[in-house]
Amino acid sequence: MISIGIDIGSVAAKAVAYDGEKILAQELIPTGWSPREAGRNLFQAISKYPQIDTKDIKCIVGTGYGRIALPFIDKKVTEITCHGKGAHFIDPNIRTIIDIGGQDSKVIRIDDRGNVIDFIMNDKCAAGTGRFLQAMAHTLEVDVSELSLLAEGVEAQNINSMCTVFAESEIISLMAEGASKESISAGLLQSVCKKTYSLASKVQIADKVFFSGGVSKNYFLKKLLENKLQAKIKTTDNAQFLGAIGAAIIGSELRR
Amino acid sequence: MISIGIDIGSVAAKAVAYDGEKILAQELIPTGWSPREAGRNLFQAISKYPQIDTKDIKCIVGTGYGRIALPFIDKKVTEITCHGKGAHFIDPNIRTIIDIGGQDSKVIRIDDRGNVIDFIMNDKCAAGTGRFLQAMAHTLEVDVSELSLLAEGVEAQNINSMCTVFAESEIISLMAEGASKESISAGLLQSVCKKTYSLASKVQIADKVFFSGGVSKNYFLKKLLENKLQAKIKTTDNAQFLGAIGAAIIGSELRR
Ligand code: SF4
Repeated sequence: MISIGIDIGSVAAKAVAYDGEKILAQELIPTGWSPREAGRNLFQAISKYPQIDTKDIKCIVGTGYGRIALPFIDKKVTEITCHGKGAHFIDPNIRTIIDIGGQDSKVIRIDDRGNVIDFIMNDKCAAGTGRFLQAMAHTLEVDVSELSLLAEGVEAQNINSMCTVFAESEIISLMAEGASKESISAGLLQSVCKKTYSLASKVQIADKVFFSGGVSKNYFLKKLLENKLQAKIKTTDNAQFLGAIGAAIIGSELRR
Repeated sequence: MISIGIDIGSVAAKAVAYDGEKILAQELIPTGWSPREAGRNLFQAISKYPQIDTKDIKCIVGTGYGRIALPFIDKKVTEITCHGKGAHFIDPNIRTIIDIGGQDSKVIRIDDRGNVIDFIMNDKCAAGTGRFLQAMAHTLEVDVSELSLLAEGVEAQNINSMCTVFAESEIISLMAEGASKESISAGLLQSVCKKTYSLASKVQIADKVFFSGGVSKNYFLKKLLENKLQAKIKTTDNAQFLGAIGAAIIGSELRR
């Protein structure tokens, strides 16, 4: 028996196939303009994996902001719940999840079964999200994936503005004054770290922290967060799939 | 005896010459990249007015975010204090000032002598400021001065995102779905009204409200604010000069 979890985020849409024990396949595509189409394409893509026999698919669970646009799913679950279940699956010792996605960030506390105890979410302000880093990378004329590499080992330029709009102007001025892209990149990751820390301060951070979402690929930001939170932070290659994994697990439990 | 008030805002730099009784001259230029240069240019421009004899200039007071960059002034005063004095000069019955500038907004309560009793300021977030409207007008491909005219008399399109960054994407989607520029303009002014109202709710609004700052030229926004605040709001052609007027008045009192 196979369950499928589909997580339609603002930037990336993810799908995971799960057989009740292990992940059989995972797929990621850009969400694009139509969450509905992204969901359909994901389902088709994941069905084509040789290890997946479509007649074994018993349940499809949708999550993420675009889940409401998916007509073909059996159940919709919030991304907070799915993140909890997904993190618990990856490592049952995890008690806190820091998720920074394309246009929101959240900190989630879970118990020893992956159930959510507390959470805080910022989805109203672009500061401190992937969107912020995207805009800043654009201004710096670098790719967002280069920021960590640029930032490592240099002294961070202090960036006063948290606001995406004001930070953009500040960076333009800093570059005009001769500040390096490296020092600005470091300053930008510091800014995201600070914003995340202030969010995290509103829930009690418990040990074993997992860093997920698209922005978790920034290894230097992970280091900054570890320093600031005084905690060891874990992340994995499939950290972006946390929501989809959780959705697939919830689906498989539904049919038990 | 003449005093000069210079207000270096983020977008516009303003100067006013005052003889202890009336305003002799006023001048406005874009702040541009250098607040210092803007200050110097303003002083030169205002000195050239025939009614101003430079040897009568006894005091120069600077205000606004760029005041720290002015080396030639006698005194620096915060814009909050200057706004209070300026509003009191324009109309001694004014008790509340709503100021929306290029990159901040504030609500100020004053007493019957123009002294500040309470104030609240937003200078951390571009939402609800001139910068927000500028960015949105750019996305709509209209001039920011056209927004009021476009917005008047149409049903406002609901815009969910307060954040400048997210509102930009929302507007692009709305336009793609066929929403009119008129209805979007109305929605944007509604959004600024809402943001201003939430700021104003944090201080007690007293009767006789004055609307100042560059954004006060939006007559339709003024109407929306009157409706929302249930108060008559006054504004004048020289509402953008409030800070400079207050600075000049403070200067003239210094030398009394
Ligand atoms: S601070 Fe900037 S990024 Fe955040 S809501 Fe305001 S405008 Fe948006």
